[in-house]
Amino acid sequence: MSNMERAQQALARLVVDVSDFPQKGIVFKDITPLLADADGLAAVVSALADAGRDGGEVVVDKVVGMESRGFILGAPVAVELGTGFVPVRKAGKLPRATHTVAYDLEYGDATLEIHQDAVAPGERVLLIDDVLATGGTLAATRQLVEACGGDVVAVAMLMELTFLPGRGAVGNLPFTVLMTV
Amino acid sequence: MSNMERAQQALARLVVDVSDFPQKGIVFKDITPLLADADGLAAVVSALADAGRDGGEVVVDKVVGMESRGFILGAPVAVELGTGFVPVRKAGKLPRATHTVAYDLEYGDATLEIHQDAVAPGERVLLIDDVLATGGTLAATRQLVEACGGDVVAVAMLMELTFLPGRGAVGNLPFTVLMTV
Repeated sequence: MSNMERAQQALARLVVDVSDFPQKGIVFKDITPLLADADGLAAVVSALADAGRDGGEVVVDKVVGMESRGFILGAPVAVELGTGFVPVRKAGKLPRATHTVAYDLEYGDATLEIHQDAVAPGERVLLIDDVLATGGTLAATRQLVEACGGDVVAVAMLMELTFLPGRGAVGNLPFTVLMTV
Repeated sequence: MSNMERAQQALARLVVDVSDFPQKGIVFKDITPLLADADGLAAVVSALADAGRDGGEVVVDKVVGMESRGFILGAPVAVELGTGFVPVRKAGKLPRATHTVAYDLEYGDATLEIHQDAVAPGERVLLIDDVLATGGTLAATRQLVEACGGDVVAVAMLMELTFLPGRGAVGNLPFTVLMTV
């Protein structure tokens, strides 16, 4: 079985729907049972890491993960690929000079930051997060990487909420998604 | 060179002091340059993972990491050990039934939560975080794991701030720390 097939089976088995969280009318996809399962975690990390390879060869220089479920997925993907990991964080969390982007979320709004020296000019970046929803976080993160001079070459997420317009933010980038809802 | 020696050299080379963050008088230890360095990240993950082994054999069932730098370190440690990963999160982030502990931080206060079913009774847990400061986060997380019926059998962190009393919260637990300040 491929990494992708193992990961898809793990997601189908272990992701839990929680109604009315974080607010009424939202069905939240809880991935914590997946993360807590040794085989499930290993399967999704391997499948996401494949997005940073081409013909078995690693083709990215950095993995960028968005706070905070993107940290849980992105860091082990970076270790598996043998790259460094860069956190994109909510406002006020990074201590040195940052680039900043404000944007709208599925519910509410947010400001994201990256250290200005976190990605070097010309570096190839794989973006990792848990869920593609409106695409706001993805678009903001791509702007942040590009503000550093980096180049987002692939995106990989566990899930896509297809009733929301997130795919527009992906554009023509190679996009790996393990489960659609 | 051992995993521990490689990790210690990486920390000495890549952790950056930032004065007056997040408030005046605090010298913040910025680990993001370490995380962004492929060799540094791999070295610290391997050294932290050794805390979950005894004679080369994995002796823990789950890795628990505290939001949010504990996510970046704990998740790859879990993958390396072949266990699941459990996030301990700030209040209001976990969607299902939680145990909750409120406590004081080095600056300010916080409430941490764990899903009640995240650790099964009798499971052996390795706690991972970036910095041991007052020990408040560690003590709270240990309470949360024990409220689930789990047993914290080891703690591993990148750094200990020895001018703060965090070691009291470690008590007699096996404690791996890669750098003291």
